[in-house]
Amino acid sequence: MPPQISYITLGVDDLERSVAFYRDVLGLPTEGIIGNEFEHGAVAFFKMAGGLTFALWPRESIAADCGVAVGTPDPTALMLAHNVGSAEEVDMLMASLPEEAVVKPARKLFWGGYGGVFADPDGHLWEVVFNPKHAA
Amino acid sequence: MPPQISYITLGVDDLERSVAFYRDVLGLPTEGIIGNEFEHGAVAFFKMAGGLTFALWPRESIAADCGVAVGTPDPTALMLAHNVGSAEEVDMLMASLPEEAVVKPARKLFWGGYGGVFADPDGHLWEVVFNPKHAA
Repeated sequence: MPPQISYITLGVDDLERSVAFYRDVLGLPTEGIIGNEFEHGAVAFFKMAGGLTFALWPRESIAADCGVAVGTPDPTALMLAHNVGSAEEVDMLMASLPEEAVVKPARKLFWGGYGGVFADPDGHLWEVVFNPKHAA
Repeated sequence: MPPQISYITLGVDDLERSVAFYRDVLGLPTEGIIGNEFEHGAVAFFKMAGGLTFALWPRESIAADCGVAVGTPDPTALMLAHNVGSAEEVDMLMASLPEEAVVKPARKLFWGGYGGVFADPDGHLWEVVFNPKHAA
């Protein structure tokens, strides 16, 4: 069995702002912020395909939990790729974003796909991509 | 269908050092660095369970590709969780790490799991975790 990544957690500066972005702008399913009753417990989970959970957790909570320093957001820390089912879906998602979130407008990609890049409120980069070779 | 994350790409300062860490220390399967013939093309892919690809790409390439500034590594940018099949596997993996990579030694977790936290050569955080509720 290949190794498994079960959770992707992004550190955020303002949990409510980030939940609003991922839930309301991107439409990701979530119960919203839970765990407020615990110190550093406030977190939001989003169930993704393949048993993967995407989570948002304040930078300060990661720092407290792991004993690391709170960093300054690094735009080059990571990129996540979110696959959608058609080029039109890429365009619709990119068009639904606040203008300042668009990093690279959607375009044809050299390998045959179609995609654009946006940044979430903390600058975490996402590529929204349609891969015609994997289309249903 | 729930939304799908297909790629997780981490920005790294030294691609060879990072590939060595993930391939040789963690044992993740990879063909190594490919794409050297393209400008900003050098990248390494690791096939994970569930159709997810984990990738390493230089920070400078992310910056050049997306038109963002190269940042300073932020220890609180993200956490990834790597699930293994037993508490013993958690211990073996944690014991195989360079001492400086260990962020939190493995311990029983309040929800019944067992896990530890380590940092990769760029400070990206990983939790190695065994969840007995999901055991085979």
